[in-house]
Amino acid sequence: MTSKQTAPLVGIVMGSRSDWETMQHAAQKLDALGVPYEVKVVSAHRTPDVLFQYAEQAATRGLRAIVAGAGGAAHLPGMLAAKTAVPVLGVPVQSKALNGMDSLLSIVQMPAGIPVATFAIGNAGAANAALFAAAMLAPEQPGIGEALAAFRQRQTDDVMAKDDPRQ
Amino acid sequence: MTSKQTAPLVGIVMGSRSDWETMQHAAQKLDALGVPYEVKVVSAHRTPDVLFQYAEQAATRGLRAIVAGAGGAAHLPGMLAAKTAVPVLGVPVQSKALNGMDSLLSIVQMPAGIPVATFAIGNAGAANAALFAAAMLAPEQPGIGEALAAFRQRQTDDVMAKDDPRQ
Amino acid sequence: MTSKQTAPLVGIVMGSRSDWETMQHAAQKLDALGVPYEVKVVSAHRTPDVLFQYAEQAATRGLRAIVAGAGGAAHLPGMLAAKTAVPVLGVPVQSKALNGMDSLLSIVQMPAGIPVATFAIGNAGAANAALFAAAMLAPEQPGIGEALAAFRQRQTDDVMAKDDPRQ
Amino acid sequence: MTSKQTAPLVGIVMGSRSDWETMQHAAQKLDALGVPYEVKVVSAHRTPDVLFQYAEQAATRGLRAIVAGAGGAAHLPGMLAAKTAVPVLGVPVQSKALNGMDSLLSIVQMPAGIPVATFAIGNAGAANAALFAAAMLAPEQPGIGEALAAFRQRQTDDVMAKDDPRQ
Amino acid sequence: MTSKQTAPLVGIVMGSRSDWETMQHAAQKLDALGVPYEVKVVSAHRTPDVLFQYAEQAATRGLRAIVAGAGGAAHLPGMLAAKTAVPVLGVPVQSKALNGMDSLLSIVQMPAGIPVATFAIGNAGAANAALFAAAMLAPEQPGIGEALAAFRQRQTDDVMAKDDPRQ
Amino acid sequence: MTSKQTAPLVGIVMGSRSDWETMQHAAQKLDALGVPYEVKVVSAHRTPDVLFQYAEQAATRGLRAIVAGAGGAAHLPGMLAAKTAVPVLGVPVQSKALNGMDSLLSIVQMPAGIPVATFAIGNAGAANAALFAAAMLAPEQPGIGEALAAFRQRQTDDVMAKDDPRQ
Amino acid sequence: MTSKQTAPLVGIVMGSRSDWETMQHAAQKLDALGVPYEVKVVSAHRTPDVLFQYAEQAATRGLRAIVAGAGGAAHLPGMLAAKTAVPVLGVPVQSKALNGMDSLLSIVQMPAGIPVATFAIGNAGAANAALFAAAMLAPEQPGIGEALAAFRQRQTDDVMAKDDPRQ
Amino acid sequence: MTSKQTAPLVGIVMGSRSDWETMQHAAQKLDALGVPYEVKVVSAHRTPDVLFQYAEQAATRGLRAIVAGAGGAAHLPGMLAAKTAVPVLGVPVQSKALNGMDSLLSIVQMPAGIPVATFAIGNAGAANAALFAAAMLAPEQPGIGEALAAFRQRQTDDVMAKDDPRQ
Repeated sequence: MTSKQTAPLVGIVMGSRSDWETMQHAAQKLDALGVPYEVKVVSAHRTPDVLFQYAEQAATRGLRAIVAGAGGAAHLPGMLAAKTAVPVLGVPVQSKALNGMDSLLSIVQMPAGIPVATFAIGNAGAANAALFAAAMLAPEQPGIGEALAAFRQRQTDDVMAKDDPRQ
Repeated sequence: MTSKQTAPLVGIVMGSRSDWETMQHAAQKLDALGVPYEVKVVSAHRTPDVLFQYAEQAATRGLRAIVAGAGGAAHLPGMLAAKTAVPVLGVPVQSKALNGMDSLLSIVQMPAGIPVATFAIGNAGAANAALFAAAMLAPEQPGIGEALAAFRQRQTDDVMAKDDPRQ
Repeated sequence: MTSKQTAPLVGIVMGSRSDWETMQHAAQKLDALGVPYEVKVVSAHRTPDVLFQYAEQAATRGLRAIVAGAGGAAHLPGMLAAKTAVPVLGVPVQSKALNGMDSLLSIVQMPAGIPVATFAIGNAGAANAALFAAAMLAPEQPGIGEALAAFRQRQTDDVMAKDDPRQ
Repeated sequence: MTSKQTAPLVGIVMGSRSDWETMQHAAQKLDALGVPYEVKVVSAHRTPDVLFQYAEQAATRGLRAIVAGAGGAAHLPGMLAAKTAVPVLGVPVQSKALNGMDSLLSIVQMPAGIPVATFAIGNAGAANAALFAAAMLAPEQPGIGEALAAFRQRQTDDVMAKDDPRQ
Repeated sequence: MTSKQTAPLVGIVMGSRSDWETMQHAAQKLDALGVPYEVKVVSAHRTPDVLFQYAEQAATRGLRAIVAGAGGAAHLPGMLAAKTAVPVLGVPVQSKALNGMDSLLSIVQMPAGIPVATFAIGNAGAANAALFAAAMLAPEQPGIGEALAAFRQRQTDDVMAKDDPRQ
Repeated sequence: MTSKQTAPLVGIVMGSRSDWETMQHAAQKLDALGVPYEVKVVSAHRTPDVLFQYAEQAATRGLRAIVAGAGGAAHLPGMLAAKTAVPVLGVPVQSKALNGMDSLLSIVQMPAGIPVATFAIGNAGAANAALFAAAMLAPEQPGIGEALAAFRQRQTDDVMAKDDPRQ
Repeated sequence: MTSKQTAPLVGIVMGSRSDWETMQHAAQKLDALGVPYEVKVVSAHRTPDVLFQYAEQAATRGLRAIVAGAGGAAHLPGMLAAKTAVPVLGVPVQSKALNGMDSLLSIVQMPAGIPVATFAIGNAGAANAALFAAAMLAPEQPGIGEALAAFRQRQTDDVMAKDDPRQ
Repeated sequence: MTSKQTAPLVGIVMGSRSDWETMQHAAQKLDALGVPYEVKVVSAHRTPDVLFQYAEQAATRGLRAIVAGAGGAAHLPGMLAAKTAVPVLGVPVQSKALNGMDSLLSIVQMPAGIPVATFAIGNAGAANAALFAAAMLAPEQPGIGEALAAFRQRQTDDVMAKDDPRQ
């Protein structure tokens, strides 16, 4: 579960260490597809200057996508998007009281002008943000495209091979 | 509806010009109570650097409270609070599709460590944020405290004087 | 977890003994910041006269803020605010069936005229109400302001020092 | 639409003059059934002392039920119930942003110990609270019982007489 | 937990045996207040004829109130109310998927003409429906009124006697 | 918009005359497909006996499906289903305050044992209930099956023929 | 829990193996009523071509109803309905974060033209979809109609035989 | 508002002609940024085969992103994503009864394995999906990147130039 040696193309950031339980599903998918990435806790509220710096340097550091997970009043993805033109993929982390509905609305309801691509609440959203980042990179990184195609074929085959749920 | 000549104690900020329809209710209350304030559009997503600068200078400029209104994925109040210790009072502006439920959750569900005092969705919230700011200032500004007490007495008297809704 | 000997500046009240599990997070933060406070169960529905008496005496007893937690049809914060000009900070306690959405709406949706500053559902809201109370007191109590600044710096440093969630 | 000369058995109260548009439907039903009632604006937040006084005197003044309508953070019904053993019937008034969902939850989610009988959001709820009050009084006031039975029969007959919606 | 020998004044009905876990809180309160009652499972959907028969006989059998609990698409309270003028008190039982929000809306949102007095979701609602039934009976049954007054005083005393939640 | 002379196979019922605005979309679809039907207002709450009688006679009168529309605490579809084995298709009518969410949950959340097939809130649901009834009848009524197939083909062709929304 | 040897009349499909925990309640009901059925995992998103093929062959393979369960963004029932005129009965599987509210809305809110008959979230919905399928088949399969009538009588008898929940 | 002559890089598709009112905001943004695109109505439910064909040909036709708008049970974006590895950007169109909450959940809550990047409900979401598509294309299409940077600078300048909402 370590990041690649090569320069990361994707940054996985999250508002709190406890979000890793969710966001590791993004890392696992990128590992499986051979997409180099980095992982970092960046809190919109506790480390706003780090957030701005991270966003400002994202493009020049070569990041092609930022996968940002946060819960509750989840401002991390939107504020990254406000500070960089690098595509930001938001993952609503499931919150305790409101089950992630607050996280989802805080991320997806961005005003016109600054987009955040939002994915499902929780683990599925983290995994899918990674798959989406890979799909974005596929046209110019044939290896990633092939790995993604193979992953998709495999999951199709898996369903078909075990399509009787009683067995 | 103009701000006072004296140095403002309260900053009224909002994410978009269209939020003024709501936020003017904060300004009206501060006017009525004699609290000096300023008004400014600061967009978390379109002018993030202005937001940071505003928050960084708030304390030294003498602001004692910031009333911040925003709608949808409303990040303005929380990001101001992340950058200043001056109390931030958040006003969820009623949004088109979700009637301000998105605005409310984006503002109120802040994680432990960085508080935003949140008020009701829409005009009532804007008015109440202003009244709350006045109440905060009252202990050291007797004039504001007296104006607030008079306002409260007047609204009590008004209800009692017209307590038959059929007339 | 005992209150200070000096006259309390903040009153922490709650509608039921069971709310203490949530509201202790307010007490802990005030303890850490050196803000003298008191703690009391006051039920809007079971002890309404105590509620009124508490609110009526709040200002003369020297309270500068009341942190009020309640769940379900949470009337305590709003009724305190109706009876005193001392700022009331409302904490929606997570309820069993509706996860605190009822508590949140009962507290935050106050009509224009009587404000309640509302914070997040549950523990985070309790902690943040305390931090907000400290921020209100900071201008005239330099010690509290310094403690608050140190707390904020520490939580920023903590995130930055442990920003790799895999370690 | 005037109240009866005889001593009122039902008190219709509401948090604001604007609630009369909804609460008049309660008055109309009581008028139609011959139940003496009174009407008064009592604001939990702007006139809390009036609220307490009203509740304290309700039993001795001969009220047998209080129909209380309020919107948003609707504390009026619950606080009346906290101060009197006279049955309180709560009517959630439809609010602007949240369509009365806030009003409903603020009224119905009372903690164990102090009940408020809650009815539907808006006009239907106001009418039904009045019908319910009449049903409570029917056992000892045969005239009201008969009027109620006649009303119910009439509404049944009306549906049956016009059961082809195309005509 | 057995019902009284004397003719019951209150009928506690519920849609399923599993609702007893909730509805026993109504029975306990009636026991404590000396209100004679009966308990019965009546399913709107599985025993609709029993429901109609129960409602049709309620008045002549001497029932003065029916406390009806149900979950999900909770039709029991409303259909009882459609068939009897005896006041029906509805208790939304907490459902599995939607936590009782479906139960609440199915019970409270009755159309104008047929009222159901609705109480909180779950145990608190069951207890409060019983307390409300007792309050309805109090004017003509002084013993019940006194028991209710004593209960209310006791719960007030209990809060006041243990108002420090840290002890 | 008149029903057919031949014995109706489908009964369209609704809780109130005002529901016809929605339910006429079911009638229009049945007309278009040549399915004989009848239309009637049957109120679960105001005419419960008519409801029971309608359900009890449905099978012997030759009805093969009942399309039942209702709003708010919508008990009509579920109570019909409780009294007949004829398939009941429920249409949640859009309600004023809660936009039909109450209608939807009151209809769809039936307990195990008594099914109601539920369709979308409002006009689309009414139209689809009719189409579903036609699909149920198609195996034994070739004419209906052919009409349904033609309708489906036509709506497909319509989309394809006008697939540039700018023209 | 195995499917019948005779040609299946009902197809039970689900989006994932994990949905079997819910959907087995449909199978159990069909087993109990003697309705021949088949069971298969068909994922709208992972095996879309299988979905299309399954729908295209449904009518010619003799299926008279398809019971389709799915959770989250539940597209399986609606896409089956788009590709076959065989009636589709949708079962919203309870999802992790949003408790099946997402599944319910994704299934029930179909646009006019393509109906999906929707049932309750979770086990009750799966059981009821099966009962509904049986009711659809009853007119031409007397054995199924009799089994269904016996099942309904039995569940009525069960409630009546054990109608004291305290025993 | 016409599409470019050059081969389209982005496909804007929508479930119904009426969605164009929303989706034109995507087209306008792509026009402004010089991104060649095409526009087409593709209904998941009424033209499922067209949907599959569109998705199957998307990559070979040179599309680099598909912006898909749909309302209610919005299956179009997810089914496109199931059939192509070209990134799909979903736009929840505001629906009549539920204001787009159904559209949002139907689009965003995709299961792990098949991602749909989701944007805000309504016009803002359509505009942002287009901006996001442009950001995806920017690394290899410098002209688009420059146009996007200029657009972002302009909207920042606009806010700053008119930051007094009272003028």
